[in-house]
Amino acid sequence: MSESPCLAAPVVEFWFEFGSNYSYPSVMRIEAAAARHGVTVAWRPFMLGPIFRELGMDNSPFVLQKEKGAYMWQDIARECRKYGLPWTRPSHFPRLGVLPLRIAIQGAGMPWMEAFCQRVMQLNFVHDQDINSPEPLAAILTDLGLPAAALLARAGSEEVKARLREQTAEARARGVFGAPTFFVGEEMFWGNDRLDDALAWAAAQGVGG
Amino acid sequence: MSESPCLAAPVVEFWFEFGSNYSYPSVMRIEAAAARHGVTVAWRPFMLGPIFRELGMDNSPFVLQKEKGAYMWQDIARECRKYGLPWTRPSHFPRLGVLPLRIAIQGAGMPWMEAFCQRVMQLNFVHDQDINSPEPLAAILTDLGLPAAALLARAGSEEVKARLREQTAEARARGVFGAPTFFVGEEMFWGNDRLDDALAWAAAQGVGG
Repeated sequence: MSESPCLAAPVVEFWFEFGSNYSYPSVMRIEAAAARHGVTVAWRPFMLGPIFRELGMDNSPFVLQKEKGAYMWQDIARECRKYGLPWTRPSHFPRLGVLPLRIAIQGAGMPWMEAFCQRVMQLNFVHDQDINSPEPLAAILTDLGLPAAALLARAGSEEVKARLREQTAEARARGVFGAPTFFVGEEMFWGNDRLDDALAWAAAQGVGG
Repeated sequence: MSESPCLAAPVVEFWFEFGSNYSYPSVMRIEAAAARHGVTVAWRPFMLGPIFRELGMDNSPFVLQKEKGAYMWQDIARECRKYGLPWTRPSHFPRLGVLPLRIAIQGAGMPWMEAFCQRVMQLNFVHDQDINSPEPLAAILTDLGLPAAALLARAGSEEVKARLREQTAEARARGVFGAPTFFVGEEMFWGNDRLDDALAWAAAQGVGG
């Protein structure tokens, strides 16, 4: 799938959502882990809500399935402890994160992408704060030395809205049903639990390719 | 939760089902992994079907959710390769396994439990054969030097049927929604992916207890 298979570093596509709790540890871990494997990360923000709706669910499965949800809150706290990541159970779940997704879709491939996404995730899953308002996002962007007003203005443009919808449609077309999801070519890996497997797979493809 | 906390080895409860594909690698791995951690395994066979029905599903989520099911067949093949376990996608899924569960519930705590469960799992997920008929189960039991006819007769008794129903009701009451599930006291771990975490948790309780 890569343009120049003999020269390019192997790529893992990272499909994620700011409202998704298991996307949080992946956002925090992926670049460092990918670097250890010599793998490049292609960040693919998308909207989980429309995907869940097309699959017949009007909310997160963790909300719809009470037992699974109750378990998940135990599990994610343990997982974050395992990775040494701070964790606070958000008072609203899942938080709507369309606005930061519209900023992130402008940032994919930019040097600030990882830092921006990590800050949004921390806002949600460490500081338990709203992630869908211009103010906190402007504060993050400004902290990162970025033109907050311009990025927020573009986030409201029809072009950027359409790009996020198209990327979400691509996720759906490729069989994505949750987040995080990783692709190495057509090989799909679902869940933060499979991040290291996806990176190892990508690294092996690079050697063989 | 253990009766004699200072003397007993820490215990992990292992809740599993013969029709459950992710229970297969756990059945194959758990005793060896538990031994490395100094943990004792309490085998807890139960029926997933009634649990799924009580949660509003008339079949496995892997059948009901086409996208998740398609992914799962990729994932379990990769997982088995990772663990060095042979794997064949069963032509019928999920296979009914009530009869072997009724034998397994007699075997919990017996020295033949692991070997019997592994043989049934291999019948389903390696040899792609029916696991709910007396003949193949009798062959396994006889191979293991066990009184096949007596165990199969007891499997049909009201007492054993009731024990399996009660164990399933206990699973439901404790919030089990899938298999495999592990408990260390009240701490719940879901999925073959969490086997090692559950054992580490049990081992740590043992040291602290």
